Amino acid sequence: GIGGPGLVVIAGPCAVESEEQMLRIARRVKAAGAQMLRGGAFKPRTSPYAFQGMGKKGLQLLALARKETGLPVVTEVLDQRTLADVAEYADVLQVGARNMQNFALLKELGQLKKPIMLKRGLSATLDEWLMSAEYLLSEGNKNIFLCERGIRAFSDHARNTLDLNVVPAVKEMSHLPIIVDPSHATGVRARVAPMARAAVAAGAHGIMIEVHDRPDQALCDGPQALHPDDFATLMVDLAAIAGALGRGMATPALKGRG
Amino acid sequence: GIGGPGLVVIAGPCAVESEEQMLRIARRVKAAGAQMLRGGAFKPRTSPYAFQGMGKKGLQLLALARKETGLPVVTEVLDQRTLADVAEYADVLQVGARNMQNFALLKELGQLKKPIMLKRGLSATLDEWLMSAEYLLSEGNKNIFLCERGIRAFSDHARNTLDLNVVPAVKEMSHLPIIVDPSHATGVRARVAPMARAAVAAGAHGIMIEVHDRPDQALCDGPQALHPDDFATLMVDLAAIAGALGRGMATPALKGRG
Amino acid sequence: GIGGPGLVVIAGPCAVESEEQMLRIARRVKAAGAQMLRGGAFKPRTSPYAFQGMGKKGLQLLALARKETGLPVVTEVLDQRTLADVAEYADVLQVGARNMQNFALLKELGQLKKPIMLKRGLSATLDEWLMSAEYLLSEGNKNIFLCERGIRAFSDHARNTLDLNVVPAVKEMSHLPIIVDPSHATGVRARVAPMARAAVAAGAHGIMIEVHDRPDQALCDGPQALHPDDFATLMVDLAAIAGALGRGMATPALKGRG
Amino acid sequence: GIGGPGLVVIAGPCAVESEEQMLRIARRVKAAGAQMLRGGAFKPRTSPYAFQGMGKKGLQLLALARKETGLPVVTEVLDQRTLADVAEYADVLQVGARNMQNFALLKELGQLKKPIMLKRGLSATLDEWLMSAEYLLSEGNKNIFLCERGIRAFSDHARNTLDLNVVPAVKEMSHLPIIVDPSHATGVRARVAPMARAAVAAGAHGIMIEVHDRPDQALCDGPQALHPDDFATLMVDLAAIAGALGRGMATPALKGRG
Repeated sequence: GIGGPGLVVIAGPCAVESEEQMLRIARRVKAAGAQMLRGGAFKPRTSPYAFQGMGKKGLQLLALARKETGLPVVTEVLDQRTLADVAEYADVLQVGARNMQNFALLKELGQLKKPIMLKRGLSATLDEWLMSAEYLLSEGNKNIFLCERGIRAFSDHARNTLDLNVVPAVKEMSHLPIIVDPSHATGVRARVAPMARAAVAAGAHGIMIEVHDRPDQALCDGPQALHPDDFATLMVDLAAIAGALGRGMATPALKGRG
Repeated sequence: GIGGPGLVVIAGPCAVESEEQMLRIARRVKAAGAQMLRGGAFKPRTSPYAFQGMGKKGLQLLALARKETGLPVVTEVLDQRTLADVAEYADVLQVGARNMQNFALLKELGQLKKPIMLKRGLSATLDEWLMSAEYLLSEGNKNIFLCERGIRAFSDHARNTLDLNVVPAVKEMSHLPIIVDPSHATGVRARVAPMARAAVAAGAHGIMIEVHDRPDQALCDGPQALHPDDFATLMVDLAAIAGALGRGMATPALKGRG
Repeated sequence: GIGGPGLVVIAGPCAVESEEQMLRIARRVKAAGAQMLRGGAFKPRTSPYAFQGMGKKGLQLLALARKETGLPVVTEVLDQRTLADVAEYADVLQVGARNMQNFALLKELGQLKKPIMLKRGLSATLDEWLMSAEYLLSEGNKNIFLCERGIRAFSDHARNTLDLNVVPAVKEMSHLPIIVDPSHATGVRARVAPMARAAVAAGAHGIMIEVHDRPDQALCDGPQALHPDDFATLMVDLAAIAGALGRGMATPALKGRG
Repeated sequence: GIGGPGLVVIAGPCAVESEEQMLRIARRVKAAGAQMLRGGAFKPRTSPYAFQGMGKKGLQLLALARKETGLPVVTEVLDQRTLADVAEYADVLQVGARNMQNFALLKELGQLKKPIMLKRGLSATLDEWLMSAEYLLSEGNKNIFLCERGIRAFSDHARNTLDLNVVPAVKEMSHLPIIVDPSHATGVRARVAPMARAAVAAGAHGIMIEVHDRPDQALCDGPQALHPDDFATLMVDLAAIAGALGRGMATPALKGRG
């Protein structure tokens, strides 16, 4: 799992959009070597008029993609009311940046038996982030990993500022594994691969990448999605960097398949 | 109410701590001329081991203080599960900075008939803040006002950086009233009064101030609480500044009492 | 002078553009009650292809405006090579935000007998700012005042983020007077007056305002320049706020005139 | 040189402290494979009471270290008055972060024939940085490379926030080579190597590292200096990452030696 010597790659679309889209992309990321599958069923959107995700139907499509590919599924939980549904379908529950200090949600997730991926808030200090993890730990859930996804600074050349300094800092101060999401950290397709490579070189335990085979039609975050071919190329680079530093890729944690 | 020509001042302790504490402070802020009463029953705390608020009992003490003083009560709603309780007792429901993009909570609050105070997130742009208000508006609740409480920047001489520029910017771009919370924006007692005066001079519709008569014993945010005597002095200054700019204090919106 | 009980207002165009422009505006700001005159002869511009100022000719026009109005002149020194010229003509030498840590320049300015206005760097902490003042003090120049002009944060609704919190913080930590420049802090004409009022209410010792009577033709920073009529209105407001807080306007420190 | 396919590593102490110190460290970084030598003779220090560098004597010791090792020398120019001296001794002149918008200095450097390393200001946008390079280019000096050294954000877990996103962004928008300084970007020895590896994986043309063999006695920035042994280990890692991505180390650009 995440936190061992091997590098873990989570990949998939920003949002589940349809059965065909989800299965098509799931097969491609599996073929390229991803060990886990991502996809959003409940989407936190700045505007109430933007696509809010397929909801429970999206969760069911993620389960279908898991059955088809054997890849465990990571998906975001937005909400105390839909937590039970997400927990039923997901293998890993993601807490998004905007909910990093949604303490009521964290307390309920702390009572689950499932792994939690806790993203860093846009302006969270490292102490605040670790304290949010403590909300999960103090309720009994020890199965946590962190995800750096860029912070808000003054820079205007990228969607966010990826703070890779935090990777070694987390390792000094905590036992929790840490992965990096270069898709949200850049917001720009051409910079995702350089930042993914950098994250591995910095010592991240894993990487999460948004992949879409028709990014111009994506309902969410198309401009930062890698095409599956480019994702496959990136996987080769990541394996090479990991290898150069004496690490390997994690063995696929296959699940189900039927 | 808030958004009219008169200046509205909301004051009270960070947290409800006991019947005596709440009533003592409520009487003092009323005597000094505050039009509304604040106090937290559910407290969002960085650490799970910090005081989390008195919960429903705290709401009941706020209702008692309202009965005693006639002042309407503003208190924070943290959570979908406790929303109904807060809505039962509060006159105005506060959405805190950490929940500004808790979209599930916003949607439920949009269906209430009660006024909502929406605080700005620590790293929220103005567009994001107004879009969060839009989550309330699009569900039917038009009774909203905004609260600037400081943003996160690099400065280390204060708890946060108060962004008063946003007051005229909100007025240019929105019809929503905006108040300012200098207590959280500074985190330091000695700077609360200067920033409160500045906010009024900048054109804010109101001010929210933390007041405690025994700040060294406060269970939360004691270092930024004004003593009631200093709060009374500040009220005189605020009235003078408002008067100098052709405004007055709002008439107390008395409620209940008997 | 600056730092006494009375409020000092420095006003004038961003840049000296011509004899007519400088004298026209100087007369208007004097008539409205400004105690000092500003105008840039050497302009620090992000692009080498932008107007760089009139240089020594600009200094001479400032001296002419001083003779005509009796107002002392504040102008920026950019450069060790032109320092002697600026020192010959200016009454107060301004160190701009970009030069706050130009230590070589500071050391030379520390050996002058003339007052220095030290602007805060865009990302300077309070400690760094006071240490830059220490470069002046340690060379023997005790005649210094500070100028807050906005910091760089993530906000995109204004040119910079005005940090008024720093006004009481400077007063706690230093004996140096502090003024505020709301023109650069906002970059938007409509927000200059609210922030100027706020700065006075926060306790600043003075204000510096850019004024231009033909802002659409200004060679520099037209969008943030107040029209002289609006400047005159603002002066009335500032006097009213100062009066409400028990302060007055400083007596004009008239100079020269003959 | 910098900007070709091979990775260039610049290394050496923060400041020249003595002949013995400079030669000892120069030999070690040369032995480990560095292609260029760094060392500060004029140091920009926040406090006027901190060590300000050895000045011209430091430049002479750098020249001695160049003669001894054959490595070209990079050193900072702080000042118009000492520019001629620095230009006489240095192979590459460094413009530090605090001087990125010292336009007078840039104009003079633009008239030199020697290469300039332009560090990014702590709060400089990419556009501002490229415009500062334009001050050099427009005066005729085309021999420029950029150096990312961390920006100022809210984070408190490191001295600065390393913005590696800017590496691919520079490559999209400019022909200028870009290197990364992980020493200043972290301020913490244990994080220098991870960020150096990350910078190479992100595609930087080079790296600049502070190395000191007695960091506890260093007159400047000891806590971020790598020991020569750790620097040698890092060089092996950097070569491995570069190799994994189809690049190699640059050939040493040997000079002089006599």
